[in-house]
Amino acid sequence: MTLGVVGGGQLGRMLALAGVPLGLRFRFLDPAPDAPAGAAGELIVGAYDDPAALERFAAGLEAITYEFENVPVEAARRLAGTLPVFPPPGALAVSQDRLAEKAFFERLGVRVPAFLPVDDRGSLERSLAELGYPAVLKTRRLGYDGKGQAVLRSPADRDSAWTRLGGVPLILEAFVPCDRELSVLAVRARDGTVAVYPLIENHQVAGILRWSRAPAPGVGSTLQATAESYVRRVLEALDYVGVLAIECFESGGRLLANEMAPRVHNSGHWTIEGAETSQFENHLRAGLGLPLGSIRPRGWSAMVNLIGNLPAPAGVLAVEGAHLHLYDKAPRAGRKLGHVTLRADDRDLLEARLGPVVDLASRAG
Amino acid sequence: MTLGVVGGGQLGRMLALAGVPLGLRFRFLDPAPDAPAGAAGELIVGAYDDPAALERFAAGLEAITYEFENVPVEAARRLAGTLPVFPPPGALAVSQDRLAEKAFFERLGVRVPAFLPVDDRGSLERSLAELGYPAVLKTRRLGYDGKGQAVLRSPADRDSAWTRLGGVPLILEAFVPCDRELSVLAVRARDGTVAVYPLIENHQVAGILRWSRAPAPGVGSTLQATAESYVRRVLEALDYVGVLAIECFESGGRLLANEMAPRVHNSGHWTIEGAETSQFENHLRAGLGLPLGSIRPRGWSAMVNLIGNLPAPAGVLAVEGAHLHLYDKAPRAGRKLGHVTLRADDRDLLEARLGPVVDLASRAG
Repeated sequence: MTLGVVGGGQLGRMLALAGVPLGLRFRFLDPAPDAPAGAAGELIVGAYDDPAALERFAAGLEAITYEFENVPVEAARRLAGTLPVFPPPGALAVSQDRLAEKAFFERLGVRVPAFLPVDDRGSLERSLAELGYPAVLKTRRLGYDGKGQAVLRSPADRDSAWTRLGGVPLILEAFVPCDRELSVLAVRARDGTVAVYPLIENHQVAGILRWSRAPAPGVGSTLQATAESYVRRVLEALDYVGVLAIECFESGGRLLANEMAPRVHNSGHWTIEGAETSQFENHLRAGLGLPLGSIRPRGWSAMVNLIGNLPAPAGVLAVEGAHLHLYDKAPRAGRKLGHVTLRADDRDLLEARLGPVVDLASRAG
Repeated sequence: MTLGVVGGGQLGRMLALAGVPLGLRFRFLDPAPDAPAGAAGELIVGAYDDPAALERFAAGLEAITYEFENVPVEAARRLAGTLPVFPPPGALAVSQDRLAEKAFFERLGVRVPAFLPVDDRGSLERSLAELGYPAVLKTRRLGYDGKGQAVLRSPADRDSAWTRLGGVPLILEAFVPCDRELSVLAVRARDGTVAVYPLIENHQVAGILRWSRAPAPGVGSTLQATAESYVRRVLEALDYVGVLAIECFESGGRLLANEMAPRVHNSGHWTIEGAETSQFENHLRAGLGLPLGSIRPRGWSAMVNLIGNLPAPAGVLAVEGAHLHLYDKAPRAGRKLGHVTLRADDRDLLEARLGPVVDLASRAG
């Protein structure tokens, strides 16, 4: 049984490593001939919107999933015409447009920062007048890792932000004083069963996730319940199958949704060692109609991204409880090349090991 | 960096699944075009003693390991002439001959059942006279999963045993009243560091491992220390690098070594989920000169082999803490097609889940 994955990056690679033990084989579609997932399955090199490549990719597959959210919705819908595709292409459509996404959250009662559409310079002025400063101007489409965003702290920032981002559809959001970033990861099975991993605490630098802690410390049952209620509403509204991540801000005890990713997520990599069942395996179990695996954490975990350049593997692996995951990518500034999971049964032990690994990662990067 | 593995069975497959995250690529040599490891690396189809196949296999590799102990020693030595090979071919030579192996154990002070060589019908009589009944007659070479063995309970069994096994070099061993079978798994790094997993309790039916518990219940510190001392002596005598397993009998509180496997071992599959670092990852870390990973168990684990026929995956995965590993092999009586690891933080919980999974496995098989 061969599963197709649109995208051949590290997420596809980790899906395959989790899926081979379930008896699956994998085929990836990716424009890059050296895509990381090539080490764990067959790679079809081609553009995501090339009908001939899509046809070669789809031939003989059991089902299709994707590992990034900018898959052309048209391509996903075309594939879904002949094969089971999970998560549903409708989830892609929502997540690809920040305005549609925020409106969707709001409609479901999922709390979000105040937002308004910005289509031209005039509507930027009107929206700023309504939301006030500071505010965040974002492109509606194709933003990731902090790209396509500008913070406007005062009227003086308007011109440069407009010069950088104007000309495409935008969204203006009220700037939320963020105590910390949390993400919630959940999986929904074909029969509607939902399992929600414990909240994860994320630390970003320049819009790129650097490291995470899971379960997030200091999360009371109310916050976890709010997160679970948010993600359940989204999963059900989309009749979703697979893993979904929602990135949130914690602000004065409130939880505000920022954006969602209809796929396995960087902040969930700790689940490979740190949860009874990883996000990758649960995504596949869901898509194949198998029972979901337990999402219970095993002790305390942290995940540290390796960005730009790799530290020496021997240095990382000398840390007890450290697990190295390399993606087979050429070093380049800002590029995610791998990650380290740290796991310990004791929270203090974990914290003691985390500092040195974050340090190793940032010195190398 | 590409690692070569002689043999493309399930052990090679699981080595690759553990090694891809370390940035490795894999190439396997196996006579079967549908070898299970083909899902996780490049497969060279060829005989183990075919010089042309060995040459194609070895071209451009970083190092070589093997996943079964009947690799021709000559082939391993030829490869070791040009490339790092681990474990050392000398370990293969010892493990391929039950007589050499027993003598080797005895020389190191590793306790074994009494044994004598049997080369012809006359020496069978003399050896039986010395060891008495019951005794076990075994072929010196190529026995596995209980094949190539006969138990002689009385003189009446001599003829049939000789008819079945005679004509090749044999060994006669005193029959040891076995309370239970235990195995000890250890890994030795290039720098001589050794780590020993906790003893594993094994349950065989007709000579084939059916299920294991780890850590083995009721193991005092003396028994564990004896096992560690046995395996350390063997590792050091062979200047070993990688994972080694020794299968033992526990008999009246004593530990007797039965045989060793110079490779990752079926009784260690629980380490994928049940130990901080799996046997597969530690075998690779050792061979690559990386620091060994912690061998600490995570809670309580059991491993159930799926033999002959597979139970429905959904039934297995509905058990909490169950992890399914399929090998992509066609069903056949007595063939290992996969395994299930059960893991729980609580020993009673594990025991409650183990019965149903053993039952599912044996009904299907």
